[in-house]
Amino acid sequence: MNTVGHFINGQVIETAERTQDVFNPATGEISKQVAIAAKNTVEEAIAAAQVAYPEWRNTPPAKRAKVMFKFKHLLEENADKICALIGEEHGKIPHDAMGELTRGIENVEFACSAPQMLKGEHSRNVGPNIDSWSEMQPLGVVAGITPFNFPAMVPLWMFPLAIVCGNTFVLKPSERDPSCALLLAQLMQEAGLPDGVLNVVNGDKVAVDTLLTAPDVKAVSFVGSTPIAEYVYATATAHGKRCQALGGAKNHAIIMPDADMDNAVAALTGAAFGSSGERCMALSVAVCVGDEAADTFIEKMSGAMQSLKVGAYTDSSNDFGPVITEAHKQKVNGYISSAEQQGATIVVDGRNPDVAGFENGFYVGGTLIDKVQPGMTCYEEEIFGPVLLVVRAESMEQAMQMINEHEYGNGTCIFTRDGEAARYFSDNILVGMVGINVPLPVPVAYHSFGGWKRSLFGSLGTYGPDGVRFYTNRKTITQRWPSSGVREGAQFSFPSH
Amino acid sequence: MNTVGHFINGQVIETAERTQDVFNPATGEISKQVAIAAKNTVEEAIAAAQVAYPEWRNTPPAKRAKVMFKFKHLLEENADKICALIGEEHGKIPHDAMGELTRGIENVEFACSAPQMLKGEHSRNVGPNIDSWSEMQPLGVVAGITPFNFPAMVPLWMFPLAIVCGNTFVLKPSERDPSCALLLAQLMQEAGLPDGVLNVVNGDKVAVDTLLTAPDVKAVSFVGSTPIAEYVYATATAHGKRCQALGGAKNHAIIMPDADMDNAVAALTGAAFGSSGERCMALSVAVCVGDEAADTFIEKMSGAMQSLKVGAYTDSSNDFGPVITEAHKQKVNGYISSAEQQGATIVVDGRNPDVAGFENGFYVGGTLIDKVQPGMTCYEEEIFGPVLLVVRAESMEQAMQMINEHEYGNGTCIFTRDGEAARYFSDNILVGMVGINVPLPVPVAYHSFGGWKRSLFGSLGTYGPDGVRFYTNRKTITQRWPSSGVREGAQFSFPSH
Amino acid sequence: MNTVGHFINGQVIETAERTQDVFNPATGEISKQVAIAAKNTVEEAIAAAQVAYPEWRNTPPAKRAKVMFKFKHLLEENADKICALIGEEHGKIPHDAMGELTRGIENVEFACSAPQMLKGEHSRNVGPNIDSWSEMQPLGVVAGITPFNFPAMVPLWMFPLAIVCGNTFVLKPSERDPSCALLLAQLMQEAGLPDGVLNVVNGDKVAVDTLLTAPDVKAVSFVGSTPIAEYVYATATAHGKRCQALGGAKNHAIIMPDADMDNAVAALTGAAFGSSGERCMALSVAVCVGDEAADTFIEKMSGAMQSLKVGAYTDSSNDFGPVITEAHKQKVNGYISSAEQQGATIVVDGRNPDVAGFENGFYVGGTLIDKVQPGMTCYEEEIFGPVLLVVRAESMEQAMQMINEHEYGNGTCIFTRDGEAARYFSDNILVGMVGINVPLPVPVAYHSFGGWKRSLFGSLGTYGPDGVRFYTNRKTITQRWPSSGVREGAQFSFPSH
Amino acid sequence: MNTVGHFINGQVIETAERTQDVFNPATGEISKQVAIAAKNTVEEAIAAAQVAYPEWRNTPPAKRAKVMFKFKHLLEENADKICALIGEEHGKIPHDAMGELTRGIENVEFACSAPQMLKGEHSRNVGPNIDSWSEMQPLGVVAGITPFNFPAMVPLWMFPLAIVCGNTFVLKPSERDPSCALLLAQLMQEAGLPDGVLNVVNGDKVAVDTLLTAPDVKAVSFVGSTPIAEYVYATATAHGKRCQALGGAKNHAIIMPDADMDNAVAALTGAAFGSSGERCMALSVAVCVGDEAADTFIEKMSGAMQSLKVGAYTDSSNDFGPVITEAHKQKVNGYISSAEQQGATIVVDGRNPDVAGFENGFYVGGTLIDKVQPGMTCYEEEIFGPVLLVVRAESMEQAMQMINEHEYGNGTCIFTRDGEAARYFSDNILVGMVGINVPLPVPVAYHSFGGWKRSLFGSLGTYGPDGVRFYTNRKTITQRWPSSGVREGAQFSFPSH
Repeated sequence: MNTVGHFINGQVIETAERTQDVFNPATGEISKQVAIAAKNTVEEAIAAAQVAYPEWRNTPPAKRAKVMFKFKHLLEENADKICALIGEEHGKIPHDAMGELTRGIENVEFACSAPQMLKGEHSRNVGPNIDSWSEMQPLGVVAGITPFNFPAMVPLWMFPLAIVCGNTFVLKPSERDPSCALLLAQLMQEAGLPDGVLNVVNGDKVAVDTLLTAPDVKAVSFVGSTPIAEYVYATATAHGKRCQALGGAKNHAIIMPDADMDNAVAALTGAAFGSSGERCMALSVAVCVGDEAADTFIEKMSGAMQSLKVGAYTDSSNDFGPVITEAHKQKVNGYISSAEQQGATIVVDGRNPDVAGFENGFYVGGTLIDKVQPGMTCYEEEIFGPVLLVVRAESMEQAMQMINEHEYGNGTCIFTRDGEAARYFSDNILVGMVGINVPLPVPVAYHSFGGWKRSLFGSLGTYGPDGVRFYTNRKTITQRWPSSGVREGAQFSFPSH
Repeated sequence: MNTVGHFINGQVIETAERTQDVFNPATGEISKQVAIAAKNTVEEAIAAAQVAYPEWRNTPPAKRAKVMFKFKHLLEENADKICALIGEEHGKIPHDAMGELTRGIENVEFACSAPQMLKGEHSRNVGPNIDSWSEMQPLGVVAGITPFNFPAMVPLWMFPLAIVCGNTFVLKPSERDPSCALLLAQLMQEAGLPDGVLNVVNGDKVAVDTLLTAPDVKAVSFVGSTPIAEYVYATATAHGKRCQALGGAKNHAIIMPDADMDNAVAALTGAAFGSSGERCMALSVAVCVGDEAADTFIEKMSGAMQSLKVGAYTDSSNDFGPVITEAHKQKVNGYISSAEQQGATIVVDGRNPDVAGFENGFYVGGTLIDKVQPGMTCYEEEIFGPVLLVVRAESMEQAMQMINEHEYGNGTCIFTRDGEAARYFSDNILVGMVGINVPLPVPVAYHSFGGWKRSLFGSLGTYGPDGVRFYTNRKTITQRWPSSGVREGAQFSFPSH
Repeated sequence: MNTVGHFINGQVIETAERTQDVFNPATGEISKQVAIAAKNTVEEAIAAAQVAYPEWRNTPPAKRAKVMFKFKHLLEENADKICALIGEEHGKIPHDAMGELTRGIENVEFACSAPQMLKGEHSRNVGPNIDSWSEMQPLGVVAGITPFNFPAMVPLWMFPLAIVCGNTFVLKPSERDPSCALLLAQLMQEAGLPDGVLNVVNGDKVAVDTLLTAPDVKAVSFVGSTPIAEYVYATATAHGKRCQALGGAKNHAIIMPDADMDNAVAALTGAAFGSSGERCMALSVAVCVGDEAADTFIEKMSGAMQSLKVGAYTDSSNDFGPVITEAHKQKVNGYISSAEQQGATIVVDGRNPDVAGFENGFYVGGTLIDKVQPGMTCYEEEIFGPVLLVVRAESMEQAMQMINEHEYGNGTCIFTRDGEAARYFSDNILVGMVGINVPLPVPVAYHSFGGWKRSLFGSLGTYGPDGVRFYTNRKTITQRWPSSGVREGAQFSFPSH
Repeated sequence: MNTVGHFINGQVIETAERTQDVFNPATGEISKQVAIAAKNTVEEAIAAAQVAYPEWRNTPPAKRAKVMFKFKHLLEENADKICALIGEEHGKIPHDAMGELTRGIENVEFACSAPQMLKGEHSRNVGPNIDSWSEMQPLGVVAGITPFNFPAMVPLWMFPLAIVCGNTFVLKPSERDPSCALLLAQLMQEAGLPDGVLNVVNGDKVAVDTLLTAPDVKAVSFVGSTPIAEYVYATATAHGKRCQALGGAKNHAIIMPDADMDNAVAALTGAAFGSSGERCMALSVAVCVGDEAADTFIEKMSGAMQSLKVGAYTDSSNDFGPVITEAHKQKVNGYISSAEQQGATIVVDGRNPDVAGFENGFYVGGTLIDKVQPGMTCYEEEIFGPVLLVVRAESMEQAMQMINEHEYGNGTCIFTRDGEAARYFSDNILVGMVGINVPLPVPVAYHSFGGWKRSLFGSLGTYGPDGVRFYTNRKTITQRWPSSGVREGAQFSFPSH
């Protein structure tokens, strides 16, 4: 059986002290092993990145960008291979894997604009014959810790931008679907990246803690659940690092009485059940304003769900695949059961679906639950499964209050035709990414991704302009050239230029 | 005896459970008391800020900026009064106090450009008929904790920008010279700021900890010493907040053999001894490249120091005043003694200067120490007194290595006429603010201030463009309007627009 | 009788070869004379500006901005005096004059942000150890030629920004209401502007042609009618200058069936009749989609117009004042008559209104004309009077087509509640300034003003970011410092860095 | 014999009313014919561009950028083919042709950043609940007219950026070396560009005038000689278009006494003689400060020139090739002769060099002329040949005065080690592109290219950020949504938001 290794200093390192099973969620079988890095293996990766840093830092940004142009091309050439790996280890259906990869490639395209994005600001004559300018210099070695649910996209949010800014990188992908990251690193090498600039270590908490505490790691980007994000943020910062840690979500859609209901249902079908709901931007709560809207929505949505197909990635006609593990399947089922017990109505029940030929896969079918209310377990926590909750609100104000009082503030959207409602919503909602008739308002690669409240810890979002700022250190130079033979009087006061 | 109170919700609150002495450092006498806030007083200030937030947030930026235009005008009108307070409580000579205030006013001028600085980015057609834009929205209540050494300027780095961005603010100034902050708050009120938007609480660790842990405080800006900065950063972040914490410094000047030596000496006299060296940007180490440069520098500098006048703020002809406390005076003297004991040469000894009529003031005279080396206590630690160390280096490389290996990375400068040396230095030095023949390279208000290494914890510098980013939360809206009667197919894949 | 003079090199020059009458439009009487500059007077002004240029150019931007901070303060202090001058010479009612001045002051506020706006872009390592940056340097002497209808605001669009960018300026205001510009220049002087940096010459075509052809004038900003704008643009550019020339307009509002009709009527009442319609952003055509919308609009608007008061600026309760001249009054009346003759319906007829006590003033009352169609004289030409045309369209597409086919493309707006309609309109309309339920979509001072089609000739709009670009010349510096003793091989190829 | 045709609406159109000879300058022989477009052919191209415009305009910028990513890849794959065409028709040696192409490709890379560059500015709450934002929309059909000396690079400065901004394009390349442009258009088509978006017409003044006067052409970019640039600017603007017209140059290098002389000589050898001096950025005048610098420079330069090889593009070891035509060869020789007659000293004489096997080619060898002075014909006019003039100046001030008084202000550079000299020079020289120890300071693709004085007519430089601004039209939208049932009072005053 194959063992997925690390990628350190341009070499695949396959030996490891410990390994862990990698499952194929569609079949429920163990398909590979993944090496679990010991502390010293992670330290080797950091050391390799540290050694590669000075030369990479001095490589002109335009030359660094050329690697990204090439990398984009290679990603497109290897798209099928990447999507196959995503299918095998994560379970995504090919069209969804391609959607993920496409979004990742767009981040590489943005990284190609590094020469533009890295410009500093220059001021002539901040004082008489004194100039000042800023340079956005790289930080050194930075680390990325990424989740299982987007094995290609989330790493591509991070390392292309960090690297094109002049940093060197250690990536710790999810140990549940590690192969994709390894392939990405190999394609970067093929694109011309010098050895040591990008390193991948597979592992568990040992690897994470090593990255969070190593003196040579200057910054940490994390995407995962909120408890871990909180731990990562507190630990990395307590060790003096800059850190951005993206956590969980509970994304609500408000459905207004004037919404184009067919449009809303079509949009939410994909946003709630696509990728089995295992997206931090999944739309998992529909808040219908007024019972009429709720009844219509429930009717149309339950109708639409009849044609939803859950199944294996090997059949492209499926709409979505399994969840990531057997344990997670049980957990999702448990949320559904708890909803039932706490008084909600299960309209469509996706527990234990029949997936012929894949009886041991980790499947949960599309589930629709009506009459959910704040306080229920299924409402307060992130389910991360193909489960759509319907909450009934009496007014838009009440709907917005629920969202604003929820722990998370990642994404949200409103379905309406009314300009004033949309503007009031987007202005006042305490959520970082807002859709107006757009159910998955993931910012495009040249904007930045980031939630509010307990969905993001840190000052800056990831990728886009915020990503560039995160991966660079401002240096401000103030310059004055002495005129010959001029003797200047001592200045004891604080200079006001 | 007067008690300096708090400023909460537009009212001066003078009663307090505890008080602490405020000294006049020039005379050594206790001149006032300052109220020390209990936890609940700080909570009242936070609550007032929270109540004032929604309306202030909704006030258009251009209208918020008008308060700043008025405030600038009032600061200019009240300049003498502010400088007098700085003199009485901090000991700064009037010309230096005015220098500090002028720099502070420049930050208010920058805050006047808020309508420009708060612009988001708008993209038409991120997908077909889909638009996306970002808004830089305020955070809510933010806190600032400021040091004794710039009682006007550092508060002015923070609250005008935070407030013009739409936040409300709680300021905890240094309890050693608290009156200035109180006056600034009153002038803001006079400029038209609604009550509760800016609050000032005086206090000690109790106040600090309350601010660092209060759930309603969304962000913390701190300027002080590195150990406290580290504590503030770790504590605020562990409570989920964004934080920028600016710490200590050990700023080196490299003096190259081709430097305009008279210019360098004149520049360093002000940069080393001005404000008694109690500046985080004070130039406290001169690294001379080659013994010839060192000998010339020592000779000229010791000559220049003969006319240096230390004394009380009441005499404008003085060059600098006392240090902040008796304890700090002893500490600075102790650093000088340790240098002597560890093998350095005291060229000019400022211990126990004679200041007629002010025998109990906390004075240390200008001190010059030659043959200092890395490893000596006076070299490794921040002295924060009027003490200039001279280190002799054999080469520019060696000089840069010392700087790069030092714990701090706030400011630095080089004296040279050579373009190549200057560029090599500014490119490769691991310091955030770099001067080329500029001894105090404090960025102007429309650039940003921030050190590297253990001089700053966080992702963003203070004031200028970084300050705007720090005090705002990115919200990204993605918008699509449904065309009438169009039914859109469900999208199960992750949308790639 | 007073003669309004020129302002050259800090002096009011009152003697002139020729003079011209200045009328009080409210009374119809000649109130003053204005000097008409001969060619050599204009050349003196240019020469004064040329002499003042080098020192002003070298004044740091932050210091130039301080003049603007002071100027803003003086404008506020002198607001009543300025508005009185506007009333006497232009006829505006005080509340409208104050609206104009407030907008002008906002441009001065934007000019205060010059240190931020003038930043160039800095790139480290465009090649190995090669840096490149841009500086936005001033042009030299620039000229502004401004119209009668905004005697304060349009000059304030131009000279504060041009001057804060480091240029020196010659302003030729309208000879119909010249006093305001003179006062503005005197306030600039009081704010600390050195003599010669801002000069005002009053005059006619002789003055204009001198400015357009003088070699020392590097750029020309013009606002006026389209035929003159076209002449100015062709002439200035034929003499090698950069030029922006803003011309006429015919601004349409589309009123959709779902519009908030009371809101639309209230908004259009001000936008059509305010300032007697003598605004290039006046809303002069209402295109109602569907007869029902048209009928309702006509009914409500004719009702609202019953309380419209036309009269002299001396009575603040008036809604609007006279037009600028007797000839213009006749011209506006002629357009109304032509509409009648060409088949339109005069719903409210403002010809020859009764203004007691001001029988010789140049008054035209609010006029509403229904059933106007493309091809009619009143539709094709700019009336510049208090005349609102109603066109009936069968569909939004037809309404948009009319707008897109019209010669002018300055401003437009739509009244609707529907997000999709608004977005389709703003995306596809060939007009530079678009309002959504905003009848006068004049961009705020930190955005830029500019029409499309024959409403603007040139590449850049006026004021805001475009204004900064227009008033500066890009200089790009590429720098490499030779390392000592390194001999570089000759490079015969075109360097690709 | 081949006829080079037009490329209209995705088709190569080979028939033409008239044709003109295309020479191979290396051999002096006619190698091809080029079609010369009649007015109606140009109009067809404009019409094709106009038809293609609406759909291309509506294609999302990120999708337009994808064509550029592909185009970059195709340019790299076809580099040899392109360079061969440049060699055959222009005469450039392969390494130089590749340098040109590389620079062109960098402009395509910049065009790939369109989604970032096209962002507008968004302001929430310009007034209460009123938002405003700008969109940089395309213009429509734009035209480019390009010179013979960079048959690949200059077209690549223009059409990729214009097209990625959403415009459609008509390119009229030089009729002397037309094949390259045709191939570029075909590669754009292969990259996925829809037909009609990019069109190429070959021709003469008829074609130029058609483009300059056609109502559907909204903007014109031109690069060529100053008299033609002036004609193009005046004609295009007189027809209401925006225009940028880049003209001639006379680029001076100041050689200071402290310059690294070997470095300066090596740099100038390439910059003066590379591409036979047929570059608008060619360094054609060396101003030596002091006779000692002049003598040393002359000695080292005449030495270096001994190994200069002029010859055909078929031999890669040549340093440069022929000039473009027999007539131009005579003209260059004439300048050399005039220098001799007017008192200068011919140090190295390149007239009539011996190029074995290519006796009929249009060769001029590297020429060095000493003791040139202002007023001489060779100094005042642009030679556009491999001729380097040496002027002796007594001081840096005198040298700068010569440059500032010259008609042209395209590029310049200084050779020095001194920071102060470099800064004084770059600040005060009236030239748009400045090198510090960089002889050909062509801005990189993410900065902008543009000279001053009579080297550029217009407000904006070409390519980079200025290019984006030139190829887009600002539209500013101001939006307010009516709250239900709220009746707003009429506003007669000019709104100050």
